[in-house]
Amino acid sequence: MPYVNIRITREGVTPEQKRQLIEGATQLLADVLGKNPATTFVIIDEVDTDNWGIAGIPVTERRLKERASQQDK
Amino acid sequence: MPYVNIRITREGVTPEQKRQLIEGATQLLADVLGKNPATTFVIIDEVDTDNWGIAGIPVTERRLKERASQQDK
Amino acid sequence: MPYVNIRITREGVTPEQKRQLIEGATQLLADVLGKNPATTFVIIDEVDTDNWGIAGIPVTERRLKERASQQDK
Amino acid sequence: MPYVNIRITREGVTPEQKRQLIEGATQLLADVLGKNPATTFVIIDEVDTDNWGIAGIPVTERRLKERASQQDK
Amino acid sequence: MPYVNIRITREGVTPEQKRQLIEGATQLLADVLGKNPATTFVIIDEVDTDNWGIAGIPVTERRLKERASQQDK
Amino acid sequence: MPYVNIRITREGVTPEQKRQLIEGATQLLADVLGKNPATTFVIIDEVDTDNWGIAGIPVTERRLKERASQQDK
Repeated sequence: MPYVNIRITREGVTPEQKRQLIEGATQLLADVLGKNPATTFVIIDEVDTDNWGIAGIPVTERRLKERASQQDK
Repeated sequence: MPYVNIRITREGVTPEQKRQLIEGATQLLADVLGKNPATTFVIIDEVDTDNWGIAGIPVTERRLKERASQQDK
Repeated sequence: MPYVNIRITREGVTPEQKRQLIEGATQLLADVLGKNPATTFVIIDEVDTDNWGIAGIPVTERRLKERASQQDK
Repeated sequence: MPYVNIRITREGVTPEQKRQLIEGATQLLADVLGKNPATTFVIIDEVDTDNWGIAGIPVTERRLKERASQQDK
Repeated sequence: MPYVNIRITREGVTPEQKRQLIEGATQLLADVLGKNPATTFVIIDEVDTDNWGIAGIPVTERRLKERASQQDK
Repeated sequence: MPYVNIRITREGVTPEQKRQLIEGATQLLADVLGKNPATTFVIIDEVDTDNWGIAGIPVTERRLKERASQQDK
């Protein structure tokens, strides 16, 4: 009866992609540990880019820098 | 000083029901472990049915199947 | 299909008390929201008192102060 | 590679304040444990005041009481 | 930069199985959402069977019932 | 009433370092958002290096590689 929590930034993930994450994670637990899909939970949390930090800055800012550095090329 | 996190699908839970969950969980910790309500946190996360999977499919899909099977009867 | 996570300090909680927390939380979700116990998860995390802070200090330290203040009386 | 999850009530936190929380938490892990900021995640969850309980009641209710008690003075 | 938290009961999972869960979950996020493995975290929490409840009872008790019902056959 | 959860690998963190993390995180929330330390929780989870993955491999393996690459120099 595993519980899988996937946290990602909210950047346009589609319902179909969510379905694939749910299916894939459930299959992974069945394949590796023989866990029963009927009692496997997968919960996806989408987090605003203002609310997710990496390397000490919000992802919002990181994305702006990435785009700027793309345009420089 | 317990921390209780209740995760449920976002399907029309009312403020009054949330109040009951908060009151009930706080009371449970006081009854069973003698915990002080003043420092008991209860946090309710409502999760979109697209983002919650069980048995390898999103709850959105599960609900559609449940309704279809109801109409068949 | 709710998921309930109860986090408490590791201070001698017995298996019987854990059983009561599991039963009580499952019942609460059934009573307030009509949730099916068969797909209700309750997970209890016991956290060392060194690893839990409140009011800016570890619970280990808080407990020492509480005992000292008891002995003063 | 620490993971820091800050959960607060949704009560008008600004992007600038979020940036400060991300920067401060990342710095804290670097200062105390020498953790590398490049692989430090900070995730801020803002929770509706209806969904956060303390002392057995929702924060929504607690805020109303606080305001009432302010006006009494 | 996804964060994946897999919670399972502590029932003899081997380091090799953990390695497979980590590899599989990281691959899933790369396949479905194009996420960079370098900044994908996977954290596995093993939970004692006394501390995990389903259907209102601890998994410890559920396992005993499962074994008893096996022996009946 | 913030809740801060710090997850780090279990690699010899001392009680004094935990105390500093608790104090620092509590102070951060007070400084940035004016939160009351009396109702600020900080919980530190130490995770075995077998159970934490980054870049698709367990930290146990990552540490071995880091040490090997150190010795090469």
